[in-house]
Amino acid sequence: MFIRNTWYVAAWAKDIVDQPTARRICNEPIVLFRNKQGLVGALEDKCPHRGAPLSKGVVTETGIECGYHGMVMDCSGACVHIPGQERIPTSARVRSYPVVEKDEFIWLWIGDAEKADPSTIVDYPFNNDYQNWPHKLGYYHIKADYKLLVDNLMDLTHLGYVHKTTIGGDPNTHVNAHMKTLATPRGVKIVRHMPNCMPPPTYAAAVSFEGRVDRWQEFEFVPPGHVIQWSGAVDTGQDALEHPEARQGGFALRVFHTATPETESSCHYFWSIANGYRQNDPSATEHLYQDVSTAFREDQDMIEAQQLRLDELGEEDLVSIVHDSGRIQMRRAINALIADTQASV
Amino acid sequence: MFIRNTWYVAAWAKDIVDQPTARRICNEPIVLFRNKQGLVGALEDKCPHRGAPLSKGVVTETGIECGYHGMVMDCSGACVHIPGQERIPTSARVRSYPVVEKDEFIWLWIGDAEKADPSTIVDYPFNNDYQNWPHKLGYYHIKADYKLLVDNLMDLTHLGYVHKTTIGGDPNTHVNAHMKTLATPRGVKIVRHMPNCMPPPTYAAAVSFEGRVDRWQEFEFVPPGHVIQWSGAVDTGQDALEHPEARQGGFALRVFHTATPETESSCHYFWSIANGYRQNDPSATEHLYQDVSTAFREDQDMIEAQQLRLDELGEEDLVSIVHDSGRIQMRRAINALIADTQASV
Amino acid sequence: MFIRNTWYVAAWAKDIVDQPTARRICNEPIVLFRNKQGLVGALEDKCPHRGAPLSKGVVTETGIECGYHGMVMDCSGACVHIPGQERIPTSARVRSYPVVEKDEFIWLWIGDAEKADPSTIVDYPFNNDYQNWPHKLGYYHIKADYKLLVDNLMDLTHLGYVHKTTIGGDPNTHVNAHMKTLATPRGVKIVRHMPNCMPPPTYAAAVSFEGRVDRWQEFEFVPPGHVIQWSGAVDTGQDALEHPEARQGGFALRVFHTATPETESSCHYFWSIANGYRQNDPSATEHLYQDVSTAFREDQDMIEAQQLRLDELGEEDLVSIVHDSGRIQMRRAINALIADTQASV
Repeated sequence: MFIRNTWYVAAWAKDIVDQPTARRICNEPIVLFRNKQGLVGALEDKCPHRGAPLSKGVVTETGIECGYHGMVMDCSGACVHIPGQERIPTSARVRSYPVVEKDEFIWLWIGDAEKADPSTIVDYPFNNDYQNWPHKLGYYHIKADYKLLVDNLMDLTHLGYVHKTTIGGDPNTHVNAHMKTLATPRGVKIVRHMPNCMPPPTYAAAVSFEGRVDRWQEFEFVPPGHVIQWSGAVDTGQDALEHPEARQGGFALRVFHTATPETESSCHYFWSIANGYRQNDPSATEHLYQDVSTAFREDQDMIEAQQLRLDELGEEDLVSIVHDSGRIQMRRAINALIADTQASV
Repeated sequence: MFIRNTWYVAAWAKDIVDQPTARRICNEPIVLFRNKQGLVGALEDKCPHRGAPLSKGVVTETGIECGYHGMVMDCSGACVHIPGQERIPTSARVRSYPVVEKDEFIWLWIGDAEKADPSTIVDYPFNNDYQNWPHKLGYYHIKADYKLLVDNLMDLTHLGYVHKTTIGGDPNTHVNAHMKTLATPRGVKIVRHMPNCMPPPTYAAAVSFEGRVDRWQEFEFVPPGHVIQWSGAVDTGQDALEHPEARQGGFALRVFHTATPETESSCHYFWSIANGYRQNDPSATEHLYQDVSTAFREDQDMIEAQQLRLDELGEEDLVSIVHDSGRIQMRRAINALIADTQASV
Repeated sequence: MFIRNTWYVAAWAKDIVDQPTARRICNEPIVLFRNKQGLVGALEDKCPHRGAPLSKGVVTETGIECGYHGMVMDCSGACVHIPGQERIPTSARVRSYPVVEKDEFIWLWIGDAEKADPSTIVDYPFNNDYQNWPHKLGYYHIKADYKLLVDNLMDLTHLGYVHKTTIGGDPNTHVNAHMKTLATPRGVKIVRHMPNCMPPPTYAAAVSFEGRVDRWQEFEFVPPGHVIQWSGAVDTGQDALEHPEARQGGFALRVFHTATPETESSCHYFWSIANGYRQNDPSATEHLYQDVSTAFREDQDMIEAQQLRLDELGEEDLVSIVHDSGRIQMRRAINALIADTQASV
């Protein structure tokens, strides 16, 4: 069961061009394409004539042309051309999905089209701000339930184990940090503040600090599967932890993580990683991107192994621990939306 | 559900030698082999002793010897030797299938053996006529229902889309041709005649025409899965379209296509492609064979994608168009024979 | 249905080190590891926290640490450390399996732990005797029911067919040998004695005989899946066939074969191959090992093909022959133990 009346990230806008892209979302096969007028279409990936995938076709002046016998559908899903006949039956159409292009994402609504309200799409303005937040975009296909990926992001104690040899460092740093879990209007936010501490070596190598720093790590979960991360440190004494607007001039990075369900046991992982410390140095952005690309593969490896085990043995007898609090609130938010979906069908 | 009381092409005769061949037909595992006397045997591919596939054995003087413990079966399926014992139990036997070697094909009857009448095998004498119809034989394993492959052959509008960059040419040529669909005693025949037209470039390159030509394309479907194709063109003015015997001296090719079900969603595609225009030029035959080998891979790619989609989403809501008429009559003929099979079991 | 209250070989002792090993036995995922004190642990391969496979973790001072969030379990399956919290809930534990390290094997008890009696483990002292029985250890993963592998070992007529070009030689040698099938306390033993015969070429090449020899081949099946083989020949005239203690100075080899079920249709095949004829020549041991490695791959190939056929078509209609007598008694012993298992659940 998927949350249905919600916006999912279907693709990076840059990747949707005039060559069709096949992508399964919530177990529905969808073709994404950009028509000759620049609009993005999202249609059921099945020609109404003989069932061939439209994603094997091409984009023409009037829509997407099936690669088998040439029927053409426009972005609304209506057939606009049948080779060899004038009359187009009204039944010759496929389902279309509402799509919105915003903040470098293609957002897709999988539920009832009449309920699709673009104003409910989460904002992520940093994707439009290459000056202050130069960033790179990533995509991984993950053979695990998207909720296991969000779990991963909501329990940072994994850093010292999964990423022991890469970005993790000493497990105790992550385990012993002071942490607050805050309810938000739609989800939950984990905030970890470390006032007046020594900067970690990677931070110190990236920027010049005067001495001790105030550090923060904030992870906000927004349903269905977004985690908006802001991490950094500035010289202590500026009251930066209490006043986020004062977090200037030190080390900072932002990540937008989102997991879109492909099937019940696989998902699409999109992330945007932004450099907020050496904005004029493209190599710093590239280096940061390479680091997280490696680390996220480590997460993938663990989550996919976990999925196989849970598929076989279930998760009824698992034991929650103290550090699961953010994860548990996140799951409650998802479960409430799934219950809404169930009630509406 | 397969049509059972019918002859299927099981193999090319040239490929059945004294090394066993394993081939699944109508979801039954079968071993084909040629015994030391030159006769072809077709047996259930399972040793009656311990169930090992007989196709992993060898052909001996008296039959096929299981590669595990050496039991030998003759072409009738009877065990004729058990290592280490004299007495052969009557239960030591496997099912044998009627087979006929004709026109370079091995024909196999999958249904009730007592109903197997070789006189009902379709004739294709061109496979025996290397002088007038030099030809080459092809085989592809297709991961799709054999009916989807026959569909493909019965709607030529696909030529301009699937084969756009190979043999297809301008889609409108195929879409706008004048077409008749004729019932035949067992199936249906699609005839497309194009009188007094300019020869297409490939035809003109292959033979010398005086000027305008009369062109024909004929596709005859014979159940369960044969499509017999004759295409060509001769100089106009000979009344060749009305009198097939006058179709001499121009461009012509013949193809015997047949799709034999392997499982409900896979099939064996055998084809024979014959050069009827430069019979003394082996390179012309080879060139023709290479062209269709490439084109048939394009068909395979599309049909396999279509199969996956139909497996998932069904074909109940598909929309037929004008050019489906031959295909629809073909499907009716198949459905009638499937109904016969159901009635007899 | 597996025999449960029995000892299975889970691994070679040499292979269980401080890196965890994942191994499925009787369809249960198990992690094997050697702790810092040198003891072998065998636990359910699922962390009680979030279900990640423990086999992706590392061995620490106190047990096995999950590679996801760092929970540590000791060899008894009890959690001994949770990062970030002092209190360890009693529910934080996983199932542990009794294990015994003996004769170079790791023996594992899959059934009720309170019934696990190490004194019932079969003895194989030759694995500890590198002076008289220098040997090498092998392991193959086989995609077939372990019973099909034991079948293979209990009907030697396969030698002349499966191993025709390797160790098999003339089929009639194996088919016509005089054979006795003897009941043993737990299983069955097949004894083939060939008194006063010429030594086969491989034997004669390995050692010097005076002339004619007395040959023996003994295969003892011990449940659940062990076959203990002793083959050889000595100069005739010493009454060696009647008096096993007199079988000195000729050619001899010993093999311990065991098949441990992984799933209903796959197994782990462990074997130890010992050189009892040129004990001081390591190249003779190596050569022997290479020979059987090749031969056992031939068995694997046939058994896996047999498994696929039996999966599809069943084995109800198979026909037993004279040489199946040892195999049939072996199957009876297994079926009796399976019935015991069924009665106890």
